[in-house]
Amino acid sequence: MALIVQKYGGSSVGTLDRIRNVAARIKRVLDEGNQVVAVVSAMGGVTDRLLGMANELNANAPERELDVLLSSGEQQSIALLAMALQAMGVDAVSATGRQAGIQTVGSHTRGRIDEIDPSLLKGYLAEGKVVIVAGFQGVTKEGMIHTLGRGGSDLSAIAVAASLDADVCQILTDVDGVYTCDPRIVLNARKLPEISYDEMLEMASSGTKVMQSRSVEFAKKYGVVFEVCSSLNDNPGTLVTEEHPAMEAVVIRGVSIERSQARVTITDIPDTPGQSGKILGCLADAEINVDMIVSNISSDGMARHSFTMHTNDLGRAQAALKPVLGELSSDAKIETEAALAKLSTVGIGMRSHSGVAAKMFQALGKAGINIGMITTSEIKISVTVSESQIEDAARVVHEAFELDKKPLA
Amino acid sequence: MALIVQKYGGSSVGTLDRIRNVAARIKRVLDEGNQVVAVVSAMGGVTDRLLGMANELNANAPERELDVLLSSGEQQSIALLAMALQAMGVDAVSATGRQAGIQTVGSHTRGRIDEIDPSLLKGYLAEGKVVIVAGFQGVTKEGMIHTLGRGGSDLSAIAVAASLDADVCQILTDVDGVYTCDPRIVLNARKLPEISYDEMLEMASSGTKVMQSRSVEFAKKYGVVFEVCSSLNDNPGTLVTEEHPAMEAVVIRGVSIERSQARVTITDIPDTPGQSGKILGCLADAEINVDMIVSNISSDGMARHSFTMHTNDLGRAQAALKPVLGELSSDAKIETEAALAKLSTVGIGMRSHSGVAAKMFQALGKAGINIGMITTSEIKISVTVSESQIEDAARVVHEAFELDKKPLA
Repeated sequence: MALIVQKYGGSSVGTLDRIRNVAARIKRVLDEGNQVVAVVSAMGGVTDRLLGMANELNANAPERELDVLLSSGEQQSIALLAMALQAMGVDAVSATGRQAGIQTVGSHTRGRIDEIDPSLLKGYLAEGKVVIVAGFQGVTKEGMIHTLGRGGSDLSAIAVAASLDADVCQILTDVDGVYTCDPRIVLNARKLPEISYDEMLEMASSGTKVMQSRSVEFAKKYGVVFEVCSSLNDNPGTLVTEEHPAMEAVVIRGVSIERSQARVTITDIPDTPGQSGKILGCLADAEINVDMIVSNISSDGMARHSFTMHTNDLGRAQAALKPVLGELSSDAKIETEAALAKLSTVGIGMRSHSGVAAKMFQALGKAGINIGMITTSEIKISVTVSESQIEDAARVVHEAFELDKKPLA
Repeated sequence: MALIVQKYGGSSVGTLDRIRNVAARIKRVLDEGNQVVAVVSAMGGVTDRLLGMANELNANAPERELDVLLSSGEQQSIALLAMALQAMGVDAVSATGRQAGIQTVGSHTRGRIDEIDPSLLKGYLAEGKVVIVAGFQGVTKEGMIHTLGRGGSDLSAIAVAASLDADVCQILTDVDGVYTCDPRIVLNARKLPEISYDEMLEMASSGTKVMQSRSVEFAKKYGVVFEVCSSLNDNPGTLVTEEHPAMEAVVIRGVSIERSQARVTITDIPDTPGQSGKILGCLADAEINVDMIVSNISSDGMARHSFTMHTNDLGRAQAALKPVLGELSSDAKIETEAALAKLSTVGIGMRSHSGVAAKMFQALGKAGINIGMITTSEIKISVTVSESQIEDAARVVHEAFELDKKPLA
């Protein structure tokens, strides 16, 4: 008998029929002799409808009250799912974030899970009950309601799994796993049977938006093995787990892409300490997320700093940098380039294999795809290419590393 | 500076515009120099919509989950009202039943308030905040969510007022007070400036459905003075309070009526102990609420027991009594009569005035209205009349006691 924590998102419980489907799925898992805890989001559309009402009453709605309002959505879906299960003869019981013992710290609308007291849940499980837990929510030590921000239900599921020492946590979603590349682009992309936490983190930060990084980080920290799988079928998904020696045999686990990137380059400033800090500081103040950062010195001893960001932020970035530019140097110039995309190869095998970058750049070169910026981490190589070439680039790199083929054990 | 607890029902917060109106009203009370705690119901229609979904998933939905589901409605309305107040520059904060410290006992869907810990609310008030409390809900000592059943938000408001030692609790509703009689029937009915708890209880139990009896009983027990007034205007309503000597000067406070009554009479049974117990027991087992009970002995020494109930229960009552009838006596017969109505006069002045019943019966007799059953309590006289004559009866009695005239002090 395994203890399985399952997470169902808002679209999985978006209608009463879908709630019945989820109930049937839980019953199947149960009938196979397992214990189940299901963490669910609000019914699809409910959160948006509530936000719409809030916005109509108060364009600047207080975050404390947004949390009280939005957390009601999950409270409805857990009760409805528990009812649907009971209608099928399954002894099910709901638990709000508070009842599940999810204690949070931090700010309203973006609470962080601090501690979990799973005693109530353990009691229910001991009584043979299925427990349906409200995702996306918790309460502070003082009893104030927090929501957990984007991807909060995934985080709830991972945290509940950790607190119950579950055998596995299944994240049921609209994709059926993590692929070597986006299968809509690379048709022979292969679903990965497993991937390490670190690879998953690098994939997430480079465009493969299956899960928020913080959920993966939480799972890594507490050693929660989780599986990303489809809510529409019972196919095995991708197991995300601690790395083990056999994983290193694979050089590249996958290729991920991110579109709508833009580059800002500041040139002709003297290479003195503190310059990049000043630049990045003013971008941070403007709440612009900078992704890749590349700096070097040209032959005349002047520095050249380049950053990438989402295209939508380019205008704001230029505006934010303008006043600082004069402080840097009277000759300082800004160059910008939009319509870029980022291609990343990720794999813990890189640590023990050489020549990965060379192979990647050669493949792109042979295909006539020009590389802009390059950054590397221990297990990732990222490059920018023209956005119009990103799909070709993905296919070329996927092919070069033969990612469509199952690696030899 | 007075501390005022206000209760707004579901129709008062049924749309975003109405929520804004409620916020404006609270702000007015605040601007007059008062502190305000508002207890609110779910937006009108929300509870029914949630119940509909529950019913579709599970015709026999578990009550524990119904409580989790339905209590989400108030959680939404409190957050929205707090947001609307903040948009008007009022420092407002919401509190769920749990946060308001409302601890319950009893069963799901009909919890009873056991204790209130007002410390969080007191803290907010001390900080100058308006507090918006979710009505209709509380939690058990173990943290399970309870709703309080019909009229639960009134009860929440009275209980919160008691725990905060509020100066007054205003029950804002769609009627603007308690009248000497239903003004749709008796056109010159007068709004009562005040009424005692006991009179209010007798009026409630005899058809004047402004509030559930248990809320009035709770107010009486804890000495909470409350005012029934309109949510649509600022007119003074009716103050419900501990009785004081001046109140006894008024013989009759009001007249209330209840339609759709039916009578069951069992005749020809021997007058031996335990017979009425047997009859009432079998009606109770069938969950039939019996209202008036009249028993007497006929000249031949046989007993005659009569009961009234709602017309809808008549068929079930006959079915329930049939098997018992033979046990009572082989001659026992059932007589039934539908299309009755009950007329009650209520007033604590009755205790010290004689001739009230005589005056009432004479007035009805003079108008050609026949009286069926009669029951009396210390402060109430109830009679049954034909349903077709009930409106005339109400006008005749109202006139006889000159209830349209303000009593002399």
